[in-house]
Amino acid sequence: MFITFEGIDGSGKSTQASLLWKWLVGEKKRKAILTREPGGWPGGEVLREIVISGRLKHEWSEAYLFMLDRAEHIASVIQPAIDSDTDVVCERYHDSTLAYQIWGRGLPLEIFDTLAEASAFPVPDITILFDIPPENALKRARSRGDLDSFEREGISFMTKIREGYLALSERDPQRWIVIQCAEESSEQIFEQMISSLASRGLIL
Amino acid sequence: MFITFEGIDGSGKSTQASLLWKWLVGEKKRKAILTREPGGWPGGEVLREIVISGRLKHEWSEAYLFMLDRAEHIASVIQPAIDSDTDVVCERYHDSTLAYQIWGRGLPLEIFDTLAEASAFPVPDITILFDIPPENALKRARSRGDLDSFEREGISFMTKIREGYLALSERDPQRWIVIQCAEESSEQIFEQMISSLASRGLIL
Repeated sequence: MFITFEGIDGSGKSTQASLLWKWLVGEKKRKAILTREPGGWPGGEVLREIVISGRLKHEWSEAYLFMLDRAEHIASVIQPAIDSDTDVVCERYHDSTLAYQIWGRGLPLEIFDTLAEASAFPVPDITILFDIPPENALKRARSRGDLDSFEREGISFMTKIREGYLALSERDPQRWIVIQCAEESSEQIFEQMISSLASRGLIL
Repeated sequence: MFITFEGIDGSGKSTQASLLWKWLVGEKKRKAILTREPGGWPGGEVLREIVISGRLKHEWSEAYLFMLDRAEHIASVIQPAIDSDTDVVCERYHDSTLAYQIWGRGLPLEIFDTLAEASAFPVPDITILFDIPPENALKRARSRGDLDSFEREGISFMTKIREGYLALSERDPQRWIVIQCAEESSEQIFEQMISSLASRGLIL
């Protein structure tokens, strides 16, 4: 199983990805890895630093950087895991690029679909969207003092990203599970995630 | 004027780019900058190192890295020069990506045309191809002990790149000047370059 976790910063996806991975390994005794983008490969931290530093000037640079990061992440981490029947729990993946670059920055969608296909990026079996009103997410991110470059762009940017994610989930409902997490506790969200996965026959 | 220099490693394009830049500034009293890809912007050396180290594993990574490098090079160096009426003499540019990734690595051409247009990469006024048989180029590169990752791929790879460059020059003959430089001295090549530019009415 290749499961990706998406949502705006502060949506709680890191917490849930970690909980699911522990549950797969601990409760279900499955082989599973927990990884994330950007930066989930040797060398990726250099790129992560470049993004976070806000040094990039060209409107397409971030997109190219994330595509590079993803290609290496796939070749060195994701594909080897898939090939050895290991579950992959991945925080952020190609849908992040789509939501942020297209809905957030206004780049064209079609070209990224073409690139993902040409680059043979594996398509996740399931993508879980943690859908949260930006106001709640920003509050949560602020409270943990973790405002990265996207969060600094504020509510209107995050609103566009959220719309992007919802549009992407509607485009391919078979792959996406949307979990509302405005006020719910992380235990409640975890329960809902497991039952959604089970209802699709994915974890028995 | 935005002039790019292309050719396989060992073709002598660095020498000629430097000679032309000195001539533009010294003889013609023009404002001109000399730059190169990859790595011609603050931060680009990090990416250059990643390529040269041969660490990249995914077949698309090199392409994404060069597109990122180019976008930043354009935003921080090339476009500001163009906007201030400064000539740009640039060693390697988008045609390098086309020749190496498409003819060398087998990636599809169309998508890179689409990306260059979507990313609004400025099109050079003139591109000078230093066309040299790979055997001669390899000999020259070896003699200066400068065998980077591409040169290490050997003659058959360099033959494909040369074919790529020639195909690109035929696709857009208005933009390209092809200079044969198998055995000619750098003085002879420089003379020919200047007279080719003059014959197109570019440097009077």
